[in-house]
Amino acid sequence: MTSPRNAALEYAKENQEKFLNSLKDLVRIPSVSTAPEHKADMLIASHWLMERLESLGFDTRLIETEGHPLVFAERTIDPAFQTVLIYGHYDVQPAEPLDLWLSPPFDPEVRDDSLFGRGASDMKGQVIACMSAVESILKTTGLNVNLKWLIEGEEEIGSPSLTPVLEEYKELLESDIVLNTDSGMIARNTPTITYGLRGLAYFELRVFGPQSDLHSGIFGGVVHNPAQALCELIAGMHDEKGRVTLPGYYDPVIPVSEKEHKQLAESPLDEDFYLKQMGVNELWGEEGYIPAERIGARPTLEINGLYSGFTGQGSKTVIPSWAMAKISMRLVPNQDPAEVQQQLVKYLQTHAPNTIRWELTPMAGAPASLLNTSLPASEALADALEKAWGKKTVYKREGGSIPIVYHMQTILGSDSILSGFGLPDDSVHAPNEKLDLPTWYTGIEALIHFLFNMQDLEK
Amino acid sequence: MTSPRNAALEYAKENQEKFLNSLKDLVRIPSVSTAPEHKADMLIASHWLMERLESLGFDTRLIETEGHPLVFAERTIDPAFQTVLIYGHYDVQPAEPLDLWLSPPFDPEVRDDSLFGRGASDMKGQVIACMSAVESILKTTGLNVNLKWLIEGEEEIGSPSLTPVLEEYKELLESDIVLNTDSGMIARNTPTITYGLRGLAYFELRVFGPQSDLHSGIFGGVVHNPAQALCELIAGMHDEKGRVTLPGYYDPVIPVSEKEHKQLAESPLDEDFYLKQMGVNELWGEEGYIPAERIGARPTLEINGLYSGFTGQGSKTVIPSWAMAKISMRLVPNQDPAEVQQQLVKYLQTHAPNTIRWELTPMAGAPASLLNTSLPASEALADALEKAWGKKTVYKREGGSIPIVYHMQTILGSDSILSGFGLPDDSVHAPNEKLDLPTWYTGIEALIHFLFNMQDLEK
Repeated sequence: MTSPRNAALEYAKENQEKFLNSLKDLVRIPSVSTAPEHKADMLIASHWLMERLESLGFDTRLIETEGHPLVFAERTIDPAFQTVLIYGHYDVQPAEPLDLWLSPPFDPEVRDDSLFGRGASDMKGQVIACMSAVESILKTTGLNVNLKWLIEGEEEIGSPSLTPVLEEYKELLESDIVLNTDSGMIARNTPTITYGLRGLAYFELRVFGPQSDLHSGIFGGVVHNPAQALCELIAGMHDEKGRVTLPGYYDPVIPVSEKEHKQLAESPLDEDFYLKQMGVNELWGEEGYIPAERIGARPTLEINGLYSGFTGQGSKTVIPSWAMAKISMRLVPNQDPAEVQQQLVKYLQTHAPNTIRWELTPMAGAPASLLNTSLPASEALADALEKAWGKKTVYKREGGSIPIVYHMQTILGSDSILSGFGLPDDSVHAPNEKLDLPTWYTGIEALIHFLFNMQDLEK
Repeated sequence: MTSPRNAALEYAKENQEKFLNSLKDLVRIPSVSTAPEHKADMLIASHWLMERLESLGFDTRLIETEGHPLVFAERTIDPAFQTVLIYGHYDVQPAEPLDLWLSPPFDPEVRDDSLFGRGASDMKGQVIACMSAVESILKTTGLNVNLKWLIEGEEEIGSPSLTPVLEEYKELLESDIVLNTDSGMIARNTPTITYGLRGLAYFELRVFGPQSDLHSGIFGGVVHNPAQALCELIAGMHDEKGRVTLPGYYDPVIPVSEKEHKQLAESPLDEDFYLKQMGVNELWGEEGYIPAERIGARPTLEINGLYSGFTGQGSKTVIPSWAMAKISMRLVPNQDPAEVQQQLVKYLQTHAPNTIRWELTPMAGAPASLLNTSLPASEALADALEKAWGKKTVYKREGGSIPIVYHMQTILGSDSILSGFGLPDDSVHAPNEKLDLPTWYTGIEALIHFLFNMQDLEK
C-alpha cells in the first residue's frame, strides 16, 4: 500500500502541468503594487488567490488596508496539532524597462525548462508551489496540521500596511511557525535555508536649485546646478575604500566572526560567480571583505534611480531646476532604519551647500533579522529539502530584506523559517525574470515532505 | 508730408494686433527640432514662413538637408545697394515638463502684456519682429536695400546641417551684413547689442555596470552601481573652487582684462539680479570672478540631464545596469569644441574605474565668437536702437551660443550683428516662456530704423 506521503508525491508528479497552468494564470495578472494604475489588478489577484484557497477547503477573508488588501485563509482541525502559517506576497515589481523583455512580462512563456514572466520567481512561483504541495496532500489523503495563509500585496513597496494588520489580527494569525518561501537557493541543486536577512531603509532625495529650468548659456556659471549638486552629495556617500560615510553608520554593526568568515569563504557565491553572473570586468565593494560577507553581513548603500532635466533624445541646453535620487540602504542586524535616516539627514545637513535646498522622503524601512536554525520546524524543513534533493541543506545569510520576518517576530512572537526555489540567475526585479521548472517541481516535493514532517512533530 | 520712415513707423503702430496674430499663428506650430514626432510640424512651420515671405514680395526656396529644411528668401533690387541677410530659426526647444505651464505651450495666450508660449521669445517673436518691420516699410514706401532671409530649423539642436548648406549656397547667401536677432536685452528699456558669444560642446555620457538590472539586496555590495559611478565622475568635474577639472580646459582661455572687468562690473546683471531672478539663497561659480564674468567671459560645464534606474513613484530596490548624463560646456573664444571633447575623454580615461564601462557621444559643438562693434552696420543698429528707446545702446558678452555666427564668419566671410528683444526673465528653454509685448513693439520700430539706416549707408 502506498503511504500518504508517497500518494501526495505521486499526485504532485501527475499534476505538474496543472500546477504550471495555475502559475501562468497568476503571472498574467499584472499586480504591480507600486503603480497606481494597477490598483484593479491587485484586487483581481487577491480574489484569484481566495478562490483557489476556497477550492482547497480553506475559509478565506480579504483583509482591507489603506493600501492593497491581504488574503487570509485558514483550515484549523485541532488545536493540539501544529499550526503552520504560510506567508506569501502576490505583488510584483514593475516590469520596466519593457523593451528588454524577450517575451512580454505578463504573458508567461516557457523556454528551455524555465517559465519567463514578472513574478514567476519572486514570488508567485513560490506561492503556487505551496498551494500545489497543500493540494497534493489534501486531494490524496489529509493532514493533521492546522494551516493558515497570509498573502500580502505590498511586499515590493516595503509592506506599509503590514504592521497595523499584524497588530489588529494578532490572534487570528497565531501559529507555531511561519513558512516563508520568499528566499532562494544558493545554486541549482543546493537546497538552502536562509537564516539571516538584511534590513532596508529606502529614501527619495530631491535637490532644488533655481525656481524654474534655466537656459544654460544665459545662466551657466552663476548657479549651482542641482543635478551636479546631487551627484556631489551622492559621490560623497562612499569613501575611497567603498565604505558608507554616513556618520555612525557602522557603529552598531556586529563584526564578522572568524568562524562565520570561514563558513562564508566556502560559499559558491565567490568572486568568479559574481563576475560571471553580472558580466562586469571587476567587482566593487567594501575593502577587506569577501563577496559573501559584503552581500550578507555588511550594510550597503545603493542608488536605485536618478532623474534630472532633459533625458530625451538629442540635446537641450537646460539647467534643471531640480534633481532626484532614489537611495536605499541594506542593513544588517543591530542597525535601526530610523537611526539610519537620522544619519542620512545629518550627512545632508553637513554636506549640502547653501546654494541648493534638499528634501528627504523615507519610502520604506525594516531592520535586519537573524533566525534560529535549531527550531524543530527549521530542522523539519532542512530534512524535507534533503529528502527532495538528496543533498545536504546549506544555510545562508541573504542580502535581501523581508520586513515581514522581523514584524512576525516582534508583533506576533512567531518565528519564521525561510527557503524558496528561486535561483541566483532568475533576474528577479529585472527584465526576463524566470523560474527554473525542474527546481520548482522538486521544491513542491520538498514542501510535501515538510508538511508531513510537521505532522510528525510533537507539540 | 510724412517721411518714408515715419510712414513705416505709423504702419507698424496701426498693425500691432495683426503682427501679434501672425506671431500667435507661428507659435501654434509645435516645431520642436529635437523630437522625431514633430518632423511634420517642422515642415508646416517652414512652409508657413515661405508663404508669409512670398506675400511680402520675396522669392523663396526651401533648402532641403539631411535634417530639417531651411527657408531662404530674397529681394535683390540693385547690387549697388547694401545687402542685409536676416537670420532666424523657426525651431523651438521641447516644452517639457508640460505640467508646469500655466497655459499650454503651443496655444499662445496674452497675460499682463506678455505673450506666453514656447518660442514666443526664442525666437519666433524675433523672426516675426523682423518680418513686421520689413512689411511696414514695403507696404508704405519701399527700401533701397537688398534683403535676404535664412531661417533654419536646427538651431536648438546645434545646427548640424548648417555648415554644408553655407558651403553649398555660398554665393546665394552673400551679404554685406547678417542681422541676427537671436540675442536679447540686458534689461527692460535697455537696448542691447551682443558682441561676444560663448561656444558649446554637448555630450551624452553613458556608464554601464552589470549586464542587466539587479536586485539590490542580492547583489548590493559586490558591484559598482553605475548611477553611483556616474555621480562620482560628475562630482569630480569641478574642484572646490568651482573650476572645471578637465585637463587643459582653461589653457587657451583669454584672461579678462582690467578694462573689461571694469565694464562688466557695471553690468546690471549683478549678484542681486541673479539671486532674485533664480530664487536661490546663494550663487555658485568659479571663485575669483564676478557673475557677469562667469556668464560672459569664463567657460562652464553643466549637467543638463540625468537618468538611471527607477524614477517612478514609490520604491524599487534595483541596481540599475546603466546610467546617463547629458553634459555640456559653454566655451569662450580660443576654446575648440573638438579639443574639449578630447579633454573630456582624457578625464574619463583617467578617472573612470575598471568596475564600469563608459561611452561618450558628442551631440553638438561650436566655438565662441567675438564681434566687431565698429562696423558701419553695427553702428547703424546701435543708432536705430537708441532712436526707438531714446536711450544709449549697451554692449554685452552673452553666455549663450549661436553657432551660426561663427559659421557665417568662417564659411561666408560675413560679419553678424546681434541683438533681439527678449528679456532675461523670458524663461526661454523653460516652462512659461513669454515675450514682453511693449518691448517687442518698440523692437519692431528699432528694426524699421535700422533698415532705413542701412539704406543711408554708402556702399
